[in-house]
Amino acid sequence: MAENEVFQYSLISALIDGVASHGTPISRILAHGDHGLGTFRNMVGEMIVVDGEVYQMKGDGTVVHISDPAATVTPFATVTRFRPTTTTRTAVSSKEDLQAILTSLFPSAKNHFLAIRMDGAFRNIKFRTAGGQCFPREGMVDVCSRQSTYSFSREEGSMFGFRCPQYAMGINVAGDHLHFISKDRQRGGHILAFETEGEVVLSAAQMSNFHMELPTDDEEFNEAALVKDEEGIHAVEIGHGRGIPK
Amino acid sequence: MAENEVFQYSLISALIDGVASHGTPISRILAHGDHGLGTFRNMVGEMIVVDGEVYQMKGDGTVVHISDPAATVTPFATVTRFRPTTTTRTAVSSKEDLQAILTSLFPSAKNHFLAIRMDGAFRNIKFRTAGGQCFPREGMVDVCSRQSTYSFSREEGSMFGFRCPQYAMGINVAGDHLHFISKDRQRGGHILAFETEGEVVLSAAQMSNFHMELPTDDEEFNEAALVKDEEGIHAVEIGHGRGIPK
Repeated sequence: MAENEVFQYSLISALIDGVASHGTPISRILAHGDHGLGTFRNMVGEMIVVDGEVYQMKGDGTVVHISDPAATVTPFATVTRFRPTTTTRTAVSSKEDLQAILTSLFPSAKNHFLAIRMDGAFRNIKFRTAGGQCFPREGMVDVCSRQSTYSFSREEGSMFGFRCPQYAMGINVAGDHLHFISKDRQRGGHILAFETEGEVVLSAAQMSNFHMELPTDDEEFNEAALVKDEEGIHAVEIGHGRGIPK
Repeated sequence: MAENEVFQYSLISALIDGVASHGTPISRILAHGDHGLGTFRNMVGEMIVVDGEVYQMKGDGTVVHISDPAATVTPFATVTRFRPTTTTRTAVSSKEDLQAILTSLFPSAKNHFLAIRMDGAFRNIKFRTAGGQCFPREGMVDVCSRQSTYSFSREEGSMFGFRCPQYAMGINVAGDHLHFISKDRQRGGHILAFETEGEVVLSAAQMSNFHMELPTDDEEFNEAALVKDEEGIHAVEIGHGRGIPK
């Protein structure tokens, strides 16, 4: 796949409906991109892909490097062959501040996709990791009601994620969606809140090509309602609401 | 692109918002597929692509063969490199009947895409053609309020179109969406109703890969709301309702 194009396997609504028993080998995901995020079979942990390396950030706080991507399956992932077109040094005071900075860097990208990376030190950072389904087809909102949240101060590391346009809600997460991994690759998860320690390196690219591969021969996927649950997706993204304790 | 994958340029919500002044050369669309449908700059007429040939079916009832696809632009099109996996001879009494036949041929495809072709004689067929925008950014519901509708009896020809899953509504048209062109390539448009004359050849394929290319450097697209207008899309698809006379 060309640089700075979105590739996703399955759709976020399928996770909301608990479609996570099967998936595609992560090696196939890596054929489409070297940076991204997602989850693992049965929603055990958060996935981040940075510089072509895949990490599973688990609910117990541990991080596993996926050394054999052909042997590990993902039911949902979004990746890109990331080649930033904009790189800047900036302090970021919050997720909302990042949102404003990106909008000013890409003023005409409201209806496009962005790939976003940040590297540096974070004064405060709060992330969560999903621990996994208790039973097949358990939906993501329920899975996240048992999420582990972690807060760290003065943590160095990298964030990677995507901004999706509003019309993609349900297919992916509309708005900014970021995962984090520490510099020593020992801690990380789905970002709920953060503040940088001074300036970090923010790099990003606008993306105008979107590719989606759907699960095949997957009864869970075929039977799923896949009705857009904007409230549920928002709750799992921000990490509280609709049964997910703050 | 591989066989039986969906490629679309822009999204149906952009047409609803009247984004139709610019687009991409049709030659670029043909690089992704040899069968499909769409429209033309300023929504002047309906597009059908059959066996790699592109036709513009205009509001005055005439059909233009696009002999130089590099010189003609489309603001929205959906195509596939169509290689049917299922071919059958069947009578079809209505759009609703076709829907039921396809669902029985592809029982596990509710959440996938289908490409659909029919060739044969039609006892009755009713189609419309959009005449074009009166001014830039005029929305598709208003354009279709002035559509020309045509009814024919005993017409031979071909239909091609797509079934999109419900979650794709707004990005494309959820449900079955078909265009028609007569065997002599002199008449055609967007199908509103039909009944076959005995059996026709119905061929179809399930599609699990979806690709979308977004307009770039297009102010109309960048500024469009692209809010999902399910009622509006339904009205232009079925050809009446919300200001579109029956």
